[in-house]
Amino acid sequence: MTKGINILEKLQLFTEQWQPKVITEMNDYQLKIAKIKGEFEWHSHSETDEVFFVIEGKLIIHLRDDSIELNPMELYVVPKGVEHKPYAEEEAKIMLIEPRGTASTGDNVGKRAAQEDEWI
Amino acid sequence: MTKGINILEKLQLFTEQWQPKVITEMNDYQLKIAKIKGEFEWHSHSETDEVFFVIEGKLIIHLRDDSIELNPMELYVVPKGVEHKPYAEEEAKIMLIEPRGTASTGDNVGKRAAQEDEWI
Repeated sequence: MTKGINILEKLQLFTEQWQPKVITEMNDYQLKIAKIKGEFEWHSHSETDEVFFVIEGKLIIHLRDDSIELNPMELYVVPKGVEHKPYAEEEAKIMLIEPRGTASTGDNVGKRAAQEDEWI
Repeated sequence: MTKGINILEKLQLFTEQWQPKVITEMNDYQLKIAKIKGEFEWHSHSETDEVFFVIEGKLIIHLRDDSIELNPMELYVVPKGVEHKPYAEEEAKIMLIEPRGTASTGDNVGKRAAQEDEWI
């Protein structure tokens, strides 16, 4: 009997924020986990939708004309091309689903662009 | 402020087993939730990997040469082409991620093939 990938255990393996870690892949997509606190920069992904799934804490996804509140076990798909700015008042633990090679700052070349393909 | 998709609330909206319901899409992929109990049939998907993520309960994914045990907040990706048989002794609540149009019985034409694209 083999164990699956335990998201809570994986989250205990790192402390840094805004640095998504790949936990597995399916086809050309990656499932990533991240710890975030504070606000990210406005950005969009012109080529792909992006799934945000909250494990712990509360995540606000600001859109230009609305805001999405996500609590644990809640998810939201930011459509491709839609500008968004993630924000968490306290540290939130989240899972992201997006194509391999998707930069965290989207079409921007931002200072906070995470190094891609960091596995945990 | 808009709410996200709450997986636990969505799971309360139906009781039938082995009938995955689409809760959202990203690009050409669908996120589905399902309640399962007992064993499914052996099958494989020749064109795609498949993500199993357990919300509640315990899921066993039998492979021909191994078995994967998944508890809540654990996930496993069945690689494309790999024969598998999901099994749950008690009802388990799971989320699946797979391309739009993926039949639940894979390359088989099984009696238990779920009607595709049933949204909830």
